[in-house]
Amino acid sequence: MKAVVYKEPFKVAVEDVSRPKIQHANDAIVRISTSAICGSDLHMYEGRTSAKPGIVFGHENLGIIEEVGSGVTDLKIGDRVVMPFNIGCGHCRNCEEGNTGFCTNLNPGFAGAAYGYVGMGPFMGGQAEYLRVPYADFNALKLPAGDSHEKDFALLTDIFPTGWDGVTRSGFKPGETIAIFGAGPVGLMAAYSAKLRGASKIFSVDIHRERLDKAKSIGAIPINRDEGDPVEQILGETEGEGGVDRGVDAVGYQAAASGKDVPNSVLMSLVKAVRPTGGIGAPGLYVTEDPGAPDEYAKQGVLPFPIGMFFEKGLTMGTGQCNVKRYNRYLRDLIISEVAKPSFVVSHEIKIDEAPNAYEKFDKRIEGYIKVLIHP
Amino acid sequence: MKAVVYKEPFKVAVEDVSRPKIQHANDAIVRISTSAICGSDLHMYEGRTSAKPGIVFGHENLGIIEEVGSGVTDLKIGDRVVMPFNIGCGHCRNCEEGNTGFCTNLNPGFAGAAYGYVGMGPFMGGQAEYLRVPYADFNALKLPAGDSHEKDFALLTDIFPTGWDGVTRSGFKPGETIAIFGAGPVGLMAAYSAKLRGASKIFSVDIHRERLDKAKSIGAIPINRDEGDPVEQILGETEGEGGVDRGVDAVGYQAAASGKDVPNSVLMSLVKAVRPTGGIGAPGLYVTEDPGAPDEYAKQGVLPFPIGMFFEKGLTMGTGQCNVKRYNRYLRDLIISEVAKPSFVVSHEIKIDEAPNAYEKFDKRIEGYIKVLIHP
Amino acid sequence: MKAVVYKEPFKVAVEDVSRPKIQHANDAIVRISTSAICGSDLHMYEGRTSAKPGIVFGHENLGIIEEVGSGVTDLKIGDRVVMPFNIGCGHCRNCEEGNTGFCTNLNPGFAGAAYGYVGMGPFMGGQAEYLRVPYADFNALKLPAGDSHEKDFALLTDIFPTGWDGVTRSGFKPGETIAIFGAGPVGLMAAYSAKLRGASKIFSVDIHRERLDKAKSIGAIPINRDEGDPVEQILGETEGEGGVDRGVDAVGYQAAASGKDVPNSVLMSLVKAVRPTGGIGAPGLYVTEDPGAPDEYAKQGVLPFPIGMFFEKGLTMGTGQCNVKRYNRYLRDLIISEVAKPSFVVSHEIKIDEAPNAYEKFDKRIEGYIKVLIHP
Amino acid sequence: MKAVVYKEPFKVAVEDVSRPKIQHANDAIVRISTSAICGSDLHMYEGRTSAKPGIVFGHENLGIIEEVGSGVTDLKIGDRVVMPFNIGCGHCRNCEEGNTGFCTNLNPGFAGAAYGYVGMGPFMGGQAEYLRVPYADFNALKLPAGDSHEKDFALLTDIFPTGWDGVTRSGFKPGETIAIFGAGPVGLMAAYSAKLRGASKIFSVDIHRERLDKAKSIGAIPINRDEGDPVEQILGETEGEGGVDRGVDAVGYQAAASGKDVPNSVLMSLVKAVRPTGGIGAPGLYVTEDPGAPDEYAKQGVLPFPIGMFFEKGLTMGTGQCNVKRYNRYLRDLIISEVAKPSFVVSHEIKIDEAPNAYEKFDKRIEGYIKVLIHP
Repeated sequence: MKAVVYKEPFKVAVEDVSRPKIQHANDAIVRISTSAICGSDLHMYEGRTSAKPGIVFGHENLGIIEEVGSGVTDLKIGDRVVMPFNIGCGHCRNCEEGNTGFCTNLNPGFAGAAYGYVGMGPFMGGQAEYLRVPYADFNALKLPAGDSHEKDFALLTDIFPTGWDGVTRSGFKPGETIAIFGAGPVGLMAAYSAKLRGASKIFSVDIHRERLDKAKSIGAIPINRDEGDPVEQILGETEGEGGVDRGVDAVGYQAAASGKDVPNSVLMSLVKAVRPTGGIGAPGLYVTEDPGAPDEYAKQGVLPFPIGMFFEKGLTMGTGQCNVKRYNRYLRDLIISEVAKPSFVVSHEIKIDEAPNAYEKFDKRIEGYIKVLIHP
Repeated sequence: MKAVVYKEPFKVAVEDVSRPKIQHANDAIVRISTSAICGSDLHMYEGRTSAKPGIVFGHENLGIIEEVGSGVTDLKIGDRVVMPFNIGCGHCRNCEEGNTGFCTNLNPGFAGAAYGYVGMGPFMGGQAEYLRVPYADFNALKLPAGDSHEKDFALLTDIFPTGWDGVTRSGFKPGETIAIFGAGPVGLMAAYSAKLRGASKIFSVDIHRERLDKAKSIGAIPINRDEGDPVEQILGETEGEGGVDRGVDAVGYQAAASGKDVPNSVLMSLVKAVRPTGGIGAPGLYVTEDPGAPDEYAKQGVLPFPIGMFFEKGLTMGTGQCNVKRYNRYLRDLIISEVAKPSFVVSHEIKIDEAPNAYEKFDKRIEGYIKVLIHP
Repeated sequence: MKAVVYKEPFKVAVEDVSRPKIQHANDAIVRISTSAICGSDLHMYEGRTSAKPGIVFGHENLGIIEEVGSGVTDLKIGDRVVMPFNIGCGHCRNCEEGNTGFCTNLNPGFAGAAYGYVGMGPFMGGQAEYLRVPYADFNALKLPAGDSHEKDFALLTDIFPTGWDGVTRSGFKPGETIAIFGAGPVGLMAAYSAKLRGASKIFSVDIHRERLDKAKSIGAIPINRDEGDPVEQILGETEGEGGVDRGVDAVGYQAAASGKDVPNSVLMSLVKAVRPTGGIGAPGLYVTEDPGAPDEYAKQGVLPFPIGMFFEKGLTMGTGQCNVKRYNRYLRDLIISEVAKPSFVVSHEIKIDEAPNAYEKFDKRIEGYIKVLIHP
Repeated sequence: MKAVVYKEPFKVAVEDVSRPKIQHANDAIVRISTSAICGSDLHMYEGRTSAKPGIVFGHENLGIIEEVGSGVTDLKIGDRVVMPFNIGCGHCRNCEEGNTGFCTNLNPGFAGAAYGYVGMGPFMGGQAEYLRVPYADFNALKLPAGDSHEKDFALLTDIFPTGWDGVTRSGFKPGETIAIFGAGPVGLMAAYSAKLRGASKIFSVDIHRERLDKAKSIGAIPINRDEGDPVEQILGETEGEGGVDRGVDAVGYQAAASGKDVPNSVLMSLVKAVRPTGGIGAPGLYVTEDPGAPDEYAKQGVLPFPIGMFFEKGLTMGTGQCNVKRYNRYLRDLIISEVAKPSFVVSHEIKIDEAPNAYEKFDKRIEGYIKVLIHP
């Protein structure tokens, strides 16, 4: 079957690889109808991780059950399903407690497994025609038959729950104000989630005009970093409160300032922009090995952090991969009832053969690339 | 009246100062029966803050109502009361939401007020014969008449709730394991709180043998930093779980390693020692101005932080001054019912004239000084 | 000054009464610009409580500070403020913990005080020209100067937070489904709150077409009790889930079925309509003395309750007066930022002299009376 | 193999039945080392449920893995395991959210499955030599090899977590006061849990002196119903607070007063004894069909409930079977670290042949029968 294979920094290719097979009683094979390219695929694509050539990318997968193992009881052939990017066994302590992004069984020696991602276990990605889904009863969420809401449902794999979770991890409650740094796919989903959950004011910080326009279109107040310090702009609009109640870092370690990497710049800004007793959610990726970082500390994921001010303000911070299963059922239902329509963020839909070209343009943030869906 | 006055780094004196008066309808004057010396007084004493000479120290105060303003309704002359170290107005947003350590009314321009502390407003401390208590109905907690449990109740002002809060901010739930860095007064109170709340294992990390012995006496497992990396020791005892569920930093910015200041050493250790999906509570003080810090960043309270590992493990962190009023009523009741007896941590009780000597010895951690109570 | 005075069952009059004065250092006097009639005023109006003649009604009050006591520090003459219907002292245990509807100081022998309400203490109501507000710094929430959003802000006194709280007490989380029994003012506010907070489906149950139309206009699915058992209708639309996730009783003890009082009918329906592990919030009033109840048990507020099914399904229930101060600040901000516009529920605005006529029609639910605002 | 079989009201027999076999890839067979008799077995034994003759009793099971299906990955032959009394599939919505007592897959048409219990699905009980455990990776919790703490671990199946959960469902926080009605096995475990979790005062209400003695031995204040209204006794000891903070109903529908069944008597007492804003947890069983109830309403599980007072006080109530898996891992660790030793409640240990005799005596509450363990 065809699959998108990582070759070297800044290069992927569509190649023929073996079709996956049932390996365990609880496996299922899914015929992929949509697999999205994620911003975190670009970290690998750019050589900013320890990913080795040969990986089949794709952790945002939706499709149709093609085959099930003997232990699978809830799914049957033909069911339309969507999979969280992270894979859980369903019975380790973390999975049982809903921390399905930190499964301790599937990727020995590490808490967390995913499809097609460096360091996340031996699981092939879904930018391909077929995908093996371990513990399928646990990892596949059923969708209505047919192809309704395909673009929206595809976002249940990762960015919609990840944005939603960033808001949750910030400690957000309805009626509060929130600032979201980054208006890429996750940042827009965070802003959209805050909107759906009753924020009184949402600030979206970015530098790309078309992303800020998207943010504005869903009710956020756009803050253009090019037009002055975003912290000053936010504080100016939250006078009397000393800042926003909550902040979300939807950028992560590849944050830039004045055109060059300043990995801690978003965290520094958030600690300043959030009011005393507020909270920060950080869904944006930080890594423990960054070969391209500007200094030795940063190469190990150690960054200068304003702990003095963080303490003085009595802030909280919550981080980590989203435990997608906590939310995907609810977000699915919001899509079905047409309360939510997250696909406004999808900019491109392509065939699998166009993937190399799409990676290149998405990585350069040109031609309006925000979110790309591959239909194999 | 007599009061303990800060003169210069490493020097306090007992001097005569004016007795406080009712200034506002909601004030009360309290005749101090006990005022404790706090580890955070030592930060000022050592010149490691921007405190100016002339401050009357003392934020851990207990005594008898001597006089009340016309707006005070619940307190009457002769009532025995204990005051949280932080002072709240009771009607700003933070106070109303229980964040009484971050009152926005009493110390204009800053969220948080306290007695006798640098940067915490114009409130005289209670290492003196009398104390003015603003918003007395709100800030004074009634105690049983007489002098029962005087030593225990004195700890309701700060260290018992602060230790308890460190455990809370870590996200602790009963049955979990927890590691507490620091077995000074706050660290011991954190360990004791974890014990009272049903921890399955408590690790107390320190370097002073008598403090580790205290920790052991209340059921904690002592971890001596001198006998090897505390992270290794803790991981060795939590095999199969990948670390402790929760961690508490009861040290703060004056952390040391191998005899010299390494302000981030406790945070680094905690991120390593806590298991994926766990949490960190940081009651230990971090400041935004540290004249004595080893480098320029640290002087502003910006320290290297392992955000990559923190994210990879999906940890949370909660910090800040304890909102004493959240807990002091409950901890008082635990003392009254004799479930809790936190005064095991009190090492010395002195008259006010002995304060200069006690500051010196407490600061040097000699002669078994752990917690000192002044009875004016 | 003029005030609305209760005379006897089904009769109120506008009479001259003494203008309130400052009685305590923390009092303020407010010149009322709007005071609403509440459905719970009708309980007294109908003689379905132990209210004695002479009470000045009015617990939903908004106006301008006219005078302040010597202890008041945050409010000044001319400030526009809105008061929660319940009055708190701000420093009893319940007030400090946010349970301001259960103040133990202001109404000795009972937990809870309010303006102009039977059993809620000696506080005159605000359907009058002036109102005395105790502990004004605590009980008055500041509004923007002028008269913007007057109708919306008036609903911050009671029904908007009460509806919001019903949703909270049900245990609601965004993405869930919810059924709200009653589409009167509180029921509509509950439905509207669920909408603002990201419900995936909202069912509004009532019998009055114009109320169901209001519910539909804000995105709820109207369920007409006249068209069949509401439980069956709801279960029919939540197939596969076994019921709604959450239920709200916005009716209370004056529930009717087939034209006569069946005080437990809403609770019975909710226990059936909510799915296993779900929750019920009950903001609708239940009382301990109901002279007009159909039987002896019911006269004491004891009703048949399906505890067997409630247990079997593992449900939760939360009840009680709303602690308005938990929410009014946030709901105010949602109004200011124009995310929320609850005044869609206001059907009539009148002068104080029209109050007797309005009580009569509101009580009969005729001429489209849903919510009435008095502008004295 | 030998098994305890229900024959008719007040009669069980030890009979030969077929040994269970692996039926599904995720099954395991466990050789039982301990299976306890539960108070809820007595409901069936007495004919107070719709249980039909032929059921093999036993939902509190501990033993050794004898055989595993092809889908089981974490367990191997010889592992010592303990099973929650409720059985979950691990991948329905309820199981995924931790509500494993309300699995919707294993007992079609009902939310919840258990071993050997009426209405809880076709699962044979464990008062037998062997037991089939469905979804064994999910339902079996591993224990240390050997036979250490056998009596304590046996209580992880039901009563220790059920008592613990009653405390949780009441909304309990450390430092609060709590009253527990019933000092049978679940009530004692609730009192013990409150102790472990830092209650400031625990009241245990019962009528049997030896049970009250047990309660006292773990630090509770015994309240003997024979010596006066327990509500009065509790209120007398919580003066100034208006009652206890939390209440637990560890009795359920077979409550008695003055020697005859008054099914709602405990709930009535709790609503009176708990202070305004407090909470009630009700682990004691209420049923929807009670053939032996005193009236028609009660036969359907509908009981008079003081909803008026419940509302007036703003109380909460949480009920239902305990989701054992939420707690058993933590309680196991408390046992291993010797913080908890719940086996103080075990009164008898017997061979399987003695079961008929033990049921009879346990049912009569004679000869000190509190908790019986069968070792097949």
